[in-house]
Amino acid sequence: MDDTSETAGDLCDVGLWGLAVMGQNFALNMASHGFKVVIGNRSPAKVDLTVARAEDEGNLPIVGSTSHEDFISKLSKPRKVVLLVMAGQAVDDTIAALAAHMEPGDLIVDGGNEWYPNSIRRAEELEKRGILFMGMGISGGEEGARNGPSLMPGGKRVAFDLMAPILNKCAAQVDDGACTGYLGPIGAGNYVKMVHNGIEYGDMQLIAEVYDVLRGVVGMTNADMSKQFARWNDGDLSSYLIEITAKILAKEDDVTGKGYVVDYILDKTGMKGTGRWTVQEAAEQSVAAPTITASLDSRYISGRKAERIEASKILNGPTEFPNVSKPQIIEDLGAALYCAKVCSYAQGLGIIKAASDTYEWDVDLSQCAKMWKGGCIIRAKLLDKIQAAMTNNPSLANLMVDPDFAQELNTRQLAWRRIVTLCVATGVPCPALSASLSYFDSYRRENLPANLTQAQRDFFGGHTYERIDREGPHHCAWTKKHKAIGDLNERSAGEQSKL
Amino acid sequence: MDDTSETAGDLCDVGLWGLAVMGQNFALNMASHGFKVVIGNRSPAKVDLTVARAEDEGNLPIVGSTSHEDFISKLSKPRKVVLLVMAGQAVDDTIAALAAHMEPGDLIVDGGNEWYPNSIRRAEELEKRGILFMGMGISGGEEGARNGPSLMPGGKRVAFDLMAPILNKCAAQVDDGACTGYLGPIGAGNYVKMVHNGIEYGDMQLIAEVYDVLRGVVGMTNADMSKQFARWNDGDLSSYLIEITAKILAKEDDVTGKGYVVDYILDKTGMKGTGRWTVQEAAEQSVAAPTITASLDSRYISGRKAERIEASKILNGPTEFPNVSKPQIIEDLGAALYCAKVCSYAQGLGIIKAASDTYEWDVDLSQCAKMWKGGCIIRAKLLDKIQAAMTNNPSLANLMVDPDFAQELNTRQLAWRRIVTLCVATGVPCPALSASLSYFDSYRRENLPANLTQAQRDFFGGHTYERIDREGPHHCAWTKKHKAIGDLNERSAGEQSKL
Repeated sequence: MDDTSETAGDLCDVGLWGLAVMGQNFALNMASHGFKVVIGNRSPAKVDLTVARAEDEGNLPIVGSTSHEDFISKLSKPRKVVLLVMAGQAVDDTIAALAAHMEPGDLIVDGGNEWYPNSIRRAEELEKRGILFMGMGISGGEEGARNGPSLMPGGKRVAFDLMAPILNKCAAQVDDGACTGYLGPIGAGNYVKMVHNGIEYGDMQLIAEVYDVLRGVVGMTNADMSKQFARWNDGDLSSYLIEITAKILAKEDDVTGKGYVVDYILDKTGMKGTGRWTVQEAAEQSVAAPTITASLDSRYISGRKAERIEASKILNGPTEFPNVSKPQIIEDLGAALYCAKVCSYAQGLGIIKAASDTYEWDVDLSQCAKMWKGGCIIRAKLLDKIQAAMTNNPSLANLMVDPDFAQELNTRQLAWRRIVTLCVATGVPCPALSASLSYFDSYRRENLPANLTQAQRDFFGGHTYERIDREGPHHCAWTKKHKAIGDLNERSAGEQSKL
Repeated sequence: MDDTSETAGDLCDVGLWGLAVMGQNFALNMASHGFKVVIGNRSPAKVDLTVARAEDEGNLPIVGSTSHEDFISKLSKPRKVVLLVMAGQAVDDTIAALAAHMEPGDLIVDGGNEWYPNSIRRAEELEKRGILFMGMGISGGEEGARNGPSLMPGGKRVAFDLMAPILNKCAAQVDDGACTGYLGPIGAGNYVKMVHNGIEYGDMQLIAEVYDVLRGVVGMTNADMSKQFARWNDGDLSSYLIEITAKILAKEDDVTGKGYVVDYILDKTGMKGTGRWTVQEAAEQSVAAPTITASLDSRYISGRKAERIEASKILNGPTEFPNVSKPQIIEDLGAALYCAKVCSYAQGLGIIKAASDTYEWDVDLSQCAKMWKGGCIIRAKLLDKIQAAMTNNPSLANLMVDPDFAQELNTRQLAWRRIVTLCVATGVPCPALSASLSYFDSYRRENLPANLTQAQRDFFGGHTYERIDREGPHHCAWTKKHKAIGDLNERSAGEQSKL
């Protein structure tokens, strides 16, 4: 295979450029599976540190480099390079520096949270030089990168096949295999990762709302809340985020030696770009994603702490609270959280499906579910059911109408309504829980009031509408003025047809 | 002023290119105010039709042209041309064709619903040739274009000054003058119009939800609903959209001769781009806009009629309904609609404010309110109060905390809660009414549960957080694994600092 004079034994199987903690850990992950890895970074300190870590972990096969040319020269052909540098310009710069020393048939895999059109552009540029390119979402944080992340690659099948032996070993392993697989052409991998993050926003906001009710309405201690989340983690809600919530709530504060860390944390949420992109893409693809959007909006509102402090002094909530059994609230909260979570996944999968249709990516949604079952932040027991639902019916219109999910939603919907009602009555905001319920109630309605909206659009803008009893489009002469304009348009159409 | 041999009397004051009904009507509007207008279109039929309409309306001063060169030659200098062609490529093509015959100091005003970065790009391109350019949003539909629309121009002040005599006469007139004014640099006018449309989406969806409750829960006839909307139009809710809703609900169906038109209209809502853009821009500017987003999402869900029919067979809602006094529901609906409307405007103004800060446009929000008071689709009595609020405090953080609005919200919030509760209990979706309430309840909360979200982000991604009791950022060693990674990072930071 290799036509150079160097023997394959001297050369590395794969390269990793970019040695922030994610990069260090993913390099160690690959090396720990027996792949010989060349690591590269402009900073010698990062290279030395990673080499030292490889030695600490039992002389894992890692060699370092700080020059792009040297880095590439240490790779067996066809060369396979994974990038883990900051999304955006740094990726372009690194690709340019590395590709200068690469040749046709070589492969670059960008593992960053990249905006998918950038990956499509880069693939096109590299294709001119015969260099393969993949955009691969990686989820699992620092720990996942080291011990098995979810890997979401998109690119040409031949590129995927080159990397598959490495990806299959380095990804998280679950019952039915590795949490990776071929997702589709370039862009698809970034897209699926972006939506993964959007769902993550949804999951996190829903948990925050449940915590808020437990804390403020039920009046539970952190210790009791921690136990409750641990109990939920033993049931249908079992998931990484529920699990860590239980741990977080139990964590005492070392800084002061008093109370719990969570109570010292400022309620201003930071964010990176992927949640925002998911919301913008949902709008772009004409998909309703109210749970995910409510989560993003909640982060924005949380960021305006100073404004909220002022607003709290002038805007009032309810002063009389309903008397509801606390055990009932806790039980209902579990049901509400489950239902809203299903909505959030339904929306996320709907966005991927719409983009896949738009761009002809042919993404297999059951594969997405499988990939998310381990390693990543949204890993959850629920994903087994989602995988089954999408396997049973790959063209399922919406996750909620899978027969099993429909039944679960139907048996839980009254509890869900009780929680939203409780929040409304007590003034505790529940934007994601209630937006999810509105989503459920809108989607299951044969007849929405959109007929009035269409009438308004026709009234003020002549936009026309369809009728239920005959073919369209139709325009109504709502008033005498409309009639005059209608005649005018007819005259116009008539005169045009003469020409 | 004019250095050609032609006398100003032979030449036209202003040109209008693009003769769909909006263009025809705006040309007639200008001519009816005494401006001599040259109209242009590639189709002679459109030109002839418009000239004929001008004759019908009492020999208004309009001359026609079908050639770009001839069209421009008929204008006095500096030439002023308004475009009303389809947003996007057609605008570029028309600008290229017209500008070829224009000279430095001339002005092109695009009146379409254009994506604001396109206007910024066009202004830069034309500036190289000395040609001025404005992007001007026009609202009011066909009737507004003829009789007085809201005109939202953005561009250089010198460009605005050239057009101001025409705009001030042709715009809708309200108590305190014309519904137009200088909004800011290029892009600002398109942006304000875009957000106007987003608010319009919100208003329309809120009305649709109220209609849905009146129809489905209260069980009112169309005639009674029409009367109720007419009553609302006499009070605080007085607005164009409430007014036309009353008219729409009273309109009997001429096609069948039986019943009302609204009941024959299919509940699938169409849309153009501006609502979508508003939602995407809100996300871009880090502004929560849940009312507007819920309205967009509702249109998307309404469009999936076939899916909804299937879902209605498998997903269940409540079967037992609460017994609430119908007059109370109607009264509460008015209060809920008012509160949610305030939220929708608060969000829209917040988006404009954020963009104005980002791009240093210095948009005066009280000017926006003034411009929207007449002519446009969202014109409403409420805008007097909004104008007053923004005049009293131009740096108001949020419309809801204006003292007058805060009081109105406080006195209505319990009614609003009763409506959302009623919808939740009956299964009638109220996405915009409830998203608005969550917005209100989130914004007025000093402490949100975002501390837990931050803890989660730090747990799985090492994103750090701020503490309430000391300067940050902080990172917690949540578990032993976190401690190991923390040590690693410290070692890394230490080694880096040596270099």
